[in-house]
Amino acid sequence: MSQKPSLPRGTRDFGAAEVARRQYVISAIRRTFERFGFAPLETPSFENLSTLTGKYGEEGDQLLYRILNSGDFLSDVTAEDFGGGYRKVAPKVADKGLRYDLTVPFARYVVQNRHALTFPFRRYQVQPVWRADRPSKGRYREFVQCDADVVGTDSLLGEAEIVLMIHEVLTTLGLPYVLKINHRGLLRALYHQLSVGAGALESEANALTGETAEPSISEADFYTALDKLDKIGVGGVRDEMIRRGLPEQLSDKFSNERLQIEDLAQPLSSFRLAHLSQQGYAATASGQTAISDLENLLHLLEESGFEGWANLELDLTLARGLSYYTGCIFEVKIPGASVGSVSGGGRYDNLTEGFGLKGMSGVGFSFGIDRLCDVLDELGGYPTALETTTQVLLVQFEEPATRAAALRTLAQLRAAGLSAELYPEPAKLKKQFAYADAKRIPYVVILGPEELAAGTAKVKVLATGAEHELALEVELVRYLLAA
Amino acid sequence: MSQKPSLPRGTRDFGAAEVARRQYVISAIRRTFERFGFAPLETPSFENLSTLTGKYGEEGDQLLYRILNSGDFLSDVTAEDFGGGYRKVAPKVADKGLRYDLTVPFARYVVQNRHALTFPFRRYQVQPVWRADRPSKGRYREFVQCDADVVGTDSLLGEAEIVLMIHEVLTTLGLPYVLKINHRGLLRALYHQLSVGAGALESEANALTGETAEPSISEADFYTALDKLDKIGVGGVRDEMIRRGLPEQLSDKFSNERLQIEDLAQPLSSFRLAHLSQQGYAATASGQTAISDLENLLHLLEESGFEGWANLELDLTLARGLSYYTGCIFEVKIPGASVGSVSGGGRYDNLTEGFGLKGMSGVGFSFGIDRLCDVLDELGGYPTALETTTQVLLVQFEEPATRAAALRTLAQLRAAGLSAELYPEPAKLKKQFAYADAKRIPYVVILGPEELAAGTAKVKVLATGAEHELALEVELVRYLLAA
Repeated sequence: MSQKPSLPRGTRDFGAAEVARRQYVISAIRRTFERFGFAPLETPSFENLSTLTGKYGEEGDQLLYRILNSGDFLSDVTAEDFGGGYRKVAPKVADKGLRYDLTVPFARYVVQNRHALTFPFRRYQVQPVWRADRPSKGRYREFVQCDADVVGTDSLLGEAEIVLMIHEVLTTLGLPYVLKINHRGLLRALYHQLSVGAGALESEANALTGETAEPSISEADFYTALDKLDKIGVGGVRDEMIRRGLPEQLSDKFSNERLQIEDLAQPLSSFRLAHLSQQGYAATASGQTAISDLENLLHLLEESGFEGWANLELDLTLARGLSYYTGCIFEVKIPGASVGSVSGGGRYDNLTEGFGLKGMSGVGFSFGIDRLCDVLDELGGYPTALETTTQVLLVQFEEPATRAAALRTLAQLRAAGLSAELYPEPAKLKKQFAYADAKRIPYVVILGPEELAAGTAKVKVLATGAEHELALEVELVRYLLAA
Repeated sequence: MSQKPSLPRGTRDFGAAEVARRQYVISAIRRTFERFGFAPLETPSFENLSTLTGKYGEEGDQLLYRILNSGDFLSDVTAEDFGGGYRKVAPKVADKGLRYDLTVPFARYVVQNRHALTFPFRRYQVQPVWRADRPSKGRYREFVQCDADVVGTDSLLGEAEIVLMIHEVLTTLGLPYVLKINHRGLLRALYHQLSVGAGALESEANALTGETAEPSISEADFYTALDKLDKIGVGGVRDEMIRRGLPEQLSDKFSNERLQIEDLAQPLSSFRLAHLSQQGYAATASGQTAISDLENLLHLLEESGFEGWANLELDLTLARGLSYYTGCIFEVKIPGASVGSVSGGGRYDNLTEGFGLKGMSGVGFSFGIDRLCDVLDELGGYPTALETTTQVLLVQFEEPATRAAALRTLAQLRAAGLSAELYPEPAKLKKQFAYADAKRIPYVVILGPEELAAGTAKVKVLATGAEHELALEVELVRYLLAA
């Protein structure tokens, strides 16, 4: 029985050229991570579902790939379960799931190995993750993330190094970028605006002590709405907040007074932070922490000789959906590219708490390799000649003596470190040259009966058509090594 | 809710040291593959189950990891299906499966891209595969294979290059090895022995034309029994063949006359092949092809300057379970190591037939990275200092001016290509040194108020306790680069 082969949606094969491009991007990131003192970690492709579920919100749980238990996976499923539908059945037929990101497996690893690790613990991780998401431009069901995290310290040096590494990697790749920064404390200050009416940030303390009512929209819902500002605009966020429970009047007031986009996303600078203080953000405890954190971050960057100032933007709407961020939040976009963010991260104080380990503050970020590659494809940023192809093809002739000479020469070329092949059959010369052409092999070595008798080989340079007759084997090997 | 984190059985985390060791092995293989003209390919982690099922035999199908369909995976399952048990339900709740090996996805890729590829097509592939097997020593549920295959030619050069690559990789890794070689034609000749009684190999032709009856044990069952010879001995194989249908008398006769182990596994040499001919193996068509293939293989190796003759063994019982081999069969064991084979492969003529493409002969082999690493762990074959760790730790002091100087120095060390960290907090010196010790960071740089005033930094070499005072920053960077 034969079948037309195909790939699952949202997945891709990578041929030699794509592998070379992906390796180019990954190497740039890996080199930077290593010079910043991060060491590699690899975790299994699947984890127990108990490790994964409940960590990515309800939407994330739905995007997890679950692995059917081996053998009789129905053995624990009763007819009643079956009647209860798939949500009831799922936990009984699958106890493992594919890695959804690298952060949760990292938290699991840290807790599991906490007695053996040296803290602050710095690790990087480059591995694929899987999400049962709807495939679209820049969104795949299997994609590779490159994460770097440091846990066990709340030093802002971690945040500063993230900015430095993002700058270094993207500069190395020749990509322009905008690094958006926000702080959970500023988001929270904005949120409490809602409960007291816009323009009175200093009342957050009162709001927290219960002197004013909690806003009628949840904190998470508010961030979700706000996060969409650049997609749906001020009016859209206003409507979204109403839909999620905020009274129309409050939503209007807040949108008019606080959601002026030009005001919300501005270059990050001491000047800008001072302005925020004037606007009342520093009057609240969380706002004060946020502004002081960001000021310290700027100092650290200055002292580190940071040169990417023009790329930094303070974006007060940046929330990145994930509710686990507790301090600075980062996101990187590439101007002129049609994919979403290529990097993101932030500080989290409670990530290992779900695994029973409290008080382990950390900060980390992730590059999306597939999107970086898409951007480089789109903007044309790859160096030429990345692909590792065969450098030398030896032609095969009928005569046994020439084959023996070719095999000996082949062994010598390889021993010298060259990538070389002997065409596997004594086919017509035209066919053998067509093979070299199609594979873009730059040099073809001809070692026929005449050359063999003369103790030489002919090298043909396919790009120019030039031919060189060289003595076997030292002269030939030298020529090709230098070519 | 907190939970004790754990890993699924048969899976492992790899910390920095393990990642370095695995990379060392993978790099050695990759370099060899590339010098032999193989180019990289990567396929998705999961494939449509229609691509995978029926390719690995019944046992293999049971070891496939199936991925539960997203959303309401029960929507197509009727109560009748449910009553029919898990085999009935499985195809309706899962249409994707995790990669089981790299060969079948490769065959799928070749067929899918046959109009774009250049044949003979040479690819290598280094990726994890997953099997729901019972975990044991050297057997994991997630493990990495390194495959190299060439398809689109039946030239024995492919076989010769496999032998050369195995020799080169294992020699590079410093491992002794035994490369067992067999040929499907010799296995078939042995099989036909059964139908005509031992000692009459020349009658195969008669057997094939129906002049003698087919043996009462299937060809596949015979190979399975034979493959176990080194585990269960001659008596075991005799019993196994009887259990699988062979009359006792035939099984006895065959075991006594043909299954003398010392006779079956011998150095591979022209002498040995000539001896096989004398024993009657060359009198059958398939036996003749086999002997001529092996003779040609030896010639090709000789002409290539092969130096690993003492490692080659002709093992007439080697079948490697997989029924798709049609020519030479390879398997590599490491003497003195307690894991099974670390490499295996062979020629296949019909691999792409299941995807609708006939006449695409190929030959390939695979290294098992995890077993190679286990062997190197066991026999102690890793070079020292593989792990990439931070090379320099800068101590952090309280004074703001020293921090600024440390950050500037840190940036310079990194710009020079060194892996360097600043301890993230101005903790006690003892704590910072303990951190360097635990992470085996070789150099600690002290840049306190006194050093700063003098325009110097102190370098402490942790291994010796030696201290050097060096001028900032050129002298310091130079010293550490040379260290």
